[in-house]
Amino acid sequence: MTQTTPYQRAEFRKPDGRFLWLYSRRPIAVQGPVPSPGNEPVRATPQQRWHPLRGEWVIYAAHRQDRTFLPPAEYNPLAPTHDPEHPTELPQGDYDIAVFQNRFPSLTLAAPEPDPVPGTVNRPGTGECEVVVFTQDAGTSLHQLPVEHVKLLVDVWADRTSALGEQDKIQYVLPFENRGVEVGVTLHHPHGQIYAYDHVPPVQTRALELAGAHLAEHGEPWAATFLREELESGQRLVSRNEGAVAVVPPFARYTYETWLLPARPAARLSDLSDAERLHFAALLKETLARLDALFGVRMPYLMTVHQAPTDGQAHEEWPLHIEIYPALRAKGKLKYLAGTEQGAGLFANDSLPEVKAKELREVTL
Amino acid sequence: MTQTTPYQRAEFRKPDGRFLWLYSRRPIAVQGPVPSPGNEPVRATPQQRWHPLRGEWVIYAAHRQDRTFLPPAEYNPLAPTHDPEHPTELPQGDYDIAVFQNRFPSLTLAAPEPDPVPGTVNRPGTGECEVVVFTQDAGTSLHQLPVEHVKLLVDVWADRTSALGEQDKIQYVLPFENRGVEVGVTLHHPHGQIYAYDHVPPVQTRALELAGAHLAEHGEPWAATFLREELESGQRLVSRNEGAVAVVPPFARYTYETWLLPARPAARLSDLSDAERLHFAALLKETLARLDALFGVRMPYLMTVHQAPTDGQAHEEWPLHIEIYPALRAKGKLKYLAGTEQGAGLFANDSLPEVKAKELREVTL
Repeated sequence: MTQTTPYQRAEFRKPDGRFLWLYSRRPIAVQGPVPSPGNEPVRATPQQRWHPLRGEWVIYAAHRQDRTFLPPAEYNPLAPTHDPEHPTELPQGDYDIAVFQNRFPSLTLAAPEPDPVPGTVNRPGTGECEVVVFTQDAGTSLHQLPVEHVKLLVDVWADRTSALGEQDKIQYVLPFENRGVEVGVTLHHPHGQIYAYDHVPPVQTRALELAGAHLAEHGEPWAATFLREELESGQRLVSRNEGAVAVVPPFARYTYETWLLPARPAARLSDLSDAERLHFAALLKETLARLDALFGVRMPYLMTVHQAPTDGQAHEEWPLHIEIYPALRAKGKLKYLAGTEQGAGLFANDSLPEVKAKELREVTL
Repeated sequence: MTQTTPYQRAEFRKPDGRFLWLYSRRPIAVQGPVPSPGNEPVRATPQQRWHPLRGEWVIYAAHRQDRTFLPPAEYNPLAPTHDPEHPTELPQGDYDIAVFQNRFPSLTLAAPEPDPVPGTVNRPGTGECEVVVFTQDAGTSLHQLPVEHVKLLVDVWADRTSALGEQDKIQYVLPFENRGVEVGVTLHHPHGQIYAYDHVPPVQTRALELAGAHLAEHGEPWAATFLREELESGQRLVSRNEGAVAVVPPFARYTYETWLLPARPAARLSDLSDAERLHFAALLKETLARLDALFGVRMPYLMTVHQAPTDGQAHEEWPLHIEIYPALRAKGKLKYLAGTEQGAGLFANDSLPEVKAKELREVTL
C-alpha cells in the first residue's frame, strides 16, 4: 500500500560512525554537532552459537559488559546534550523521536567471522540493534504523549522495519519496549529498542507455521477468526475503536497480558493506512494508560511488536499485533518465570483471562 | 537397571486428603498426627488452554491466588509443626526429606472437565504438583547438606519420577528448585518442586527431536558426543569426578549457566546406579557451592532436572542432565528476560561460556 509520509525525517552520522535518525511532526532543526558519549568507533564482535537441544541460536555479545548501568540522575544519555563536556546520544533541537544505532549492540551487520570454537557451531552475530527515544522529555511515559506523537512512533516503527528489512541479511525486525526497573531497565527516559535478526526467530517461526496452517484450513487469516470470536464473545475485550482492538487473549500467559490488533488484519505496520495507524496508536496509548491506572503505580512491562518477516513476501497469514506483558500479577506482586516456564516452556497463570480483562475494561481513566 | 533401595520411605495421608512421603537414611519415626495448614479438602480446578501462535498449552490455576506469600518469619509451613495451633505441612520426627502434594496445585490428576470457553480450546489441568522439602533445617542450603543427604535427594527425585510416571496420564516429570527472592521464591526453607505433566512439554519435545536426530546421524547419543568434546576441550569444564561432569555449555544462555551430566549417558535418574547417584550428588553439591562462593552471596538460581519422558520407552537418545540458571550476570546485576528473549525466543548473553567457566573453575571452595 502506498503511504503518504506525514512526518519529517532526517539522517545524521555520529562522530563514532553510528547513524542517527530524527523524526518529527514539524520541520526538524538541530543545534550544534550531533554528539556521542564516546568518539571511539564501535567495535562489536557478537557471535551466535547453536543450542543443540533447544534448536535456537544464542547471541554472545561480550563487549556489552561495560555498558551503562543505572547511571546517576544527573547524566542521562538519552536526553539532549546540554553540557558539551558530557555529551549524550542526542542533540538539542526541534524533533519528536530519535533512533540511533546502539553503542553496545548485541547484533551488528559489521560482525566479523568468529574464530571456530571446538565443541560448538558458531557464526557472526549479524543483525542490528537500535535505540528508539520516544520523546525529549525524560519524565514522561509513552501513554502520556499526545496521540499524534504516539502515532509518529508507529510510523517510526514502520519506517525502521522497512529500512532494516531492505537489508539483504535482515530477515526479521522486532521493535519492543522494556519498561521499569522490575524488568531490568537501566535508563528511565522513555525509550524502546529495535532488534533486527538475520533469521526468523523461534517464536515467529512457530507462529508462521501455525498461522499458515490456520489460513490453509479455515480460508481466512488467523487474526480474522480471532477478532470475530473476541468481538462476538466480548468477555476478554479491554477496549476498541474503529480501527483497533485490545483484548486479553484467551490463552494469556501473563495475568494482565494484552494484545493489540488492527481491526483489519494486516501483516506489517507498513500495511496500515495513515488513519489506521492513528487508531492503532490511540488504542495503544489508552491500553498502556489502563495498565498504569490499574493499581495506581507505573506498571512494569515488556511490549513487543509482532510483524511478518521482512523476506519480501506478503504473508497474508501473519497477524500483525502488539503483545504487552505486564510484570505485576497483582498489586506489589511480580510474576516470575520459574521452573515450569523456563525448564519446560509451560506457563502457569493464576488468573483467568476473562476476569482480568474485566478489571482492565473497568479501570477509570 | 535393578536398584537396591538404600533408604527408608513412608507414605502418609494428610487430614485434607493429600499424600505425604517421608524419606530417610535412617528408620523413619513420626511424632503425633500428620498435619496440614488447613483441613478443608483441596479443590483445584486447573485448566489448560491452547496458545494458537506459540503452539503450547497454557496452565490456568485461578485457585492459586490465595496461596502463601512471604509469610512472617515465625510461621514456616515447611518446618516441622511445633505449635499444634499453627500446624505446618510436616510432622516432627526422624526423617531427612519430605515430599507432599501441593495444597495449591497448578495441575492435579483430579482436575475436572472445564466448561467450554468460546474462542479457545481448553481441557483439564491434568498433572501433579509436589513440594520437596530438602531438610528439616530452615536455615541451610542444598549444597551445605552432607553429600549422603544430597544423594538421598537424587534418590527422591528418581523415586517420585518413577511413581508419577507410572500414572497413565503422566507423560513427563520435571523436578526443579527455584532459589532466592530474586527469582520469586516466597518460602526460604530449602525446598524444590516437582511438576508432572500430561504431555511432553515444548522444551522437551524439541530436545527429543534434536537428540533423536543426533543419534540417528552420529550413531551415539548426543550426551556421549557432548561429553567427549567438552572433556577434550576442557575450556568450559567447571569440575568433574569419576561419575559426573559439570560444564558451562558452549551454548549457555545465562552468564553462569551450568549443566551437570552423568559421565555415562543415561535417560533418567532411575538408570543410574547407587554409586553413580552418589557421584552425581557430590558434583551437584560442589557446583552449587561454587555458585555461592563466586560472589560471596547466595546465588539466586533456577535448577531443572531433565529426564526422558515417562512413556515407558528407553529413550537411549535422551541426555539426562541438570540445568542450573544462575540469576546474576555479575555481582549485584540480575539477568532479565526482555524483548529479545521473550518476544523472539532469542537469548542475548553478555559473556562467553569459556570465560565464565574459568571463573567458576577457579573459585576457592
